[in-house]
Amino acid sequence: MARRYETVSFLSDYGHADEFVGVVHSVIRSIAPHVRVIDLVHDLEPFDVRAASLALSRVVQYVAPGIVLAVVDPGVATDRRPIAVEVGADGEGVLIGPDNGLLAPAVAMSGGATRVIELSNPDYQLPAPGPTFAGRDVFAPAAAHLALGVPLGDFGPEVDPYSLRPGLIPLTREEGETLAAEVLWVDRFGNCQLNVDPAELEGWGDPLVLRLPGEQVRRARRARSFADIGSGQVGLIIDSYGLVAIAVDRSSAAEALHLHPGAPVTIERGT
Amino acid sequence: MARRYETVSFLSDYGHADEFVGVVHSVIRSIAPHVRVIDLVHDLEPFDVRAASLALSRVVQYVAPGIVLAVVDPGVATDRRPIAVEVGADGEGVLIGPDNGLLAPAVAMSGGATRVIELSNPDYQLPAPGPTFAGRDVFAPAAAHLALGVPLGDFGPEVDPYSLRPGLIPLTREEGETLAAEVLWVDRFGNCQLNVDPAELEGWGDPLVLRLPGEQVRRARRARSFADIGSGQVGLIIDSYGLVAIAVDRSSAAEALHLHPGAPVTIERGT
Amino acid sequence: MARRYETVSFLSDYGHADEFVGVVHSVIRSIAPHVRVIDLVHDLEPFDVRAASLALSRVVQYVAPGIVLAVVDPGVATDRRPIAVEVGADGEGVLIGPDNGLLAPAVAMSGGATRVIELSNPDYQLPAPGPTFAGRDVFAPAAAHLALGVPLGDFGPEVDPYSLRPGLIPLTREEGETLAAEVLWVDRFGNCQLNVDPAELEGWGDPLVLRLPGEQVRRARRARSFADIGSGQVGLIIDSYGLVAIAVDRSSAAEALHLHPGAPVTIERGT
Repeated sequence: MARRYETVSFLSDYGHADEFVGVVHSVIRSIAPHVRVIDLVHDLEPFDVRAASLALSRVVQYVAPGIVLAVVDPGVATDRRPIAVEVGADGEGVLIGPDNGLLAPAVAMSGGATRVIELSNPDYQLPAPGPTFAGRDVFAPAAAHLALGVPLGDFGPEVDPYSLRPGLIPLTREEGETLAAEVLWVDRFGNCQLNVDPAELEGWGDPLVLRLPGEQVRRARRARSFADIGSGQVGLIIDSYGLVAIAVDRSSAAEALHLHPGAPVTIERGT
Repeated sequence: MARRYETVSFLSDYGHADEFVGVVHSVIRSIAPHVRVIDLVHDLEPFDVRAASLALSRVVQYVAPGIVLAVVDPGVATDRRPIAVEVGADGEGVLIGPDNGLLAPAVAMSGGATRVIELSNPDYQLPAPGPTFAGRDVFAPAAAHLALGVPLGDFGPEVDPYSLRPGLIPLTREEGETLAAEVLWVDRFGNCQLNVDPAELEGWGDPLVLRLPGEQVRRARRARSFADIGSGQVGLIIDSYGLVAIAVDRSSAAEALHLHPGAPVTIERGT
Repeated sequence: MARRYETVSFLSDYGHADEFVGVVHSVIRSIAPHVRVIDLVHDLEPFDVRAASLALSRVVQYVAPGIVLAVVDPGVATDRRPIAVEVGADGEGVLIGPDNGLLAPAVAMSGGATRVIELSNPDYQLPAPGPTFAGRDVFAPAAAHLALGVPLGDFGPEVDPYSLRPGLIPLTREEGETLAAEVLWVDRFGNCQLNVDPAELEGWGDPLVLRLPGEQVRRARRARSFADIGSGQVGLIIDSYGLVAIAVDRSSAAEALHLHPGAPVTIERGT
């Protein structure tokens, strides 16, 4: 037997309107009762692999030691491979999910893959009444049996890490006096995280100028807290993951400025 | 003392906007700290006993051994009975909830009731500041005390299983060359599960013709996966519970075709 | 070492669309794996300290022994203090959250503070990539370390309980033959809880007359259950927390009567 795991951290686009999340919990509880399942997030936009991979890459540094189970799987029941990716020394962590780019940024942030296995052994799958719920029939049983101590190699053949679908993290481009950026994430409070490290704006002055979709041009002040921004003003804060975010105080910047994930944002030096 | 239980699997229409689910968890944790509560689903349509009983019947085969707690209870504080239904050999499983048809399909799928008890013993209830939260005051304490090893017979008098409110699962009707069916469930992804077993359509050809509300007539191809369906097309897939479902690729069939649970769907042989 | 705690009961306005709740669970699981986290409610209106403090005061009597973690924190990253409030004999319970009035009603219902500590010791905080997620960086680590047995006094200096921000619970006013009340809470089912104890309406007759915003005047009958109210009628029930609530049978009183939390409701004696 290989090492056992105590925790499965679970992310999906299953939402809460149906029983999908509950069934995955039930399958894991039935196979490996000792495991604690931690729900990371399930109300991601359906099928949005990019948003999910970004969420996973934000979370992965905080996740408890053990297994990560991530299922956003528009290609379910096609030939996309179900995989398990070992990271860290001695199989410290394993990420389980479809090979569609979802896991890639989190794997990179965890130091890269030490081993990748295709989850093809039917002994560790549930019989499927239909092929469209791989979370229940393939991924959850894999996580549970792995937690019980089944060696990773028993789940299927090894896969070349270089054959995995890459993840896509959009990069900024500096163009003369401007920085072409993009909204990565709009959170519940309407804060708009950009793909911008605060260091990229060092020495750019304050306030800065934002060019937003719909030909909007807005001045934005750097602020340390939401309360700092001032009513009706647009602020640039360093958000809780250390990236630059567009915010307004106690209301939604996304609504006020009509921003959504993927929206282009050009930042200009202040004058 | 009777057997103890380790898991309570919990389904309700309490939603997540209020603290109802959290209070039920708290009550169980306070009485029986060893129990793990697995949330099956809580965002069911308020008061929709039919939808909830269908969800419970889908889930029940995957639920971890132990107690099922199900609360969708429009008749709370009337004379509808709170009940516990024992299923399987030696009290392997117990389903707890109101006697309004909610539990019936799941009980049938679990092999039928071996014993039914009315939960009337106030020793295993909380004092109720008001009568409308039986989940907190009656059902959760019953689940917790049962998990602790209180014998089922201590909760109240035995009830004749034939006196229970039946559940309603709509059947298909074959009418000449057509099958009159019904949407059972629309999931988060907009897939529309029908009350149709794939065997009922064997030899009916491909594509088939669907007659839908609003005088819509649509060709539907049989498909193995969502990706198989083809953009803009309507597909019939075998869904994850082994029933026929109407689907479109990466968007909502329910929205595209204006379908909802209970909508009539007539299927005609292809030509 | 001081006493250990087994349960952290967690309330926030983090919602479920993002990973905030999952990250807090992950942080606690990483530091104190023995702890069970019970989610009380997270879909509270963002930044609505009043609604959250009312929810917490409803729940607190049912919460399992241990730690309460409550985070609704519009002043995050300003000088509002993060605090821990000990209640009960021998540190039976501890409430953790921002000093903005959120904890105050629940502390009062728990018998008052026996000790208050400002959570300022960085040894029990996570390094913060940005200052806006105190739930992750300050409050969750405090709850976890406290659960592990770190003495409360190690987290920072003692604070005078009289210096805490008070909570606000609106009181009714009797004005001649009328009672001026207010909607405290609209639940998922649309029931409108008032700040009215049933004793305040003793001897006022039945039906009563409600004056509602928008110059609505409605007769309301006292009812014991939702089913009692009668279709199309407005009822006054004693809700599950023992307060008077405006309800209609199987649909939403809030929608039918355009009510929301904070709406003024004047009750007149029936004739």
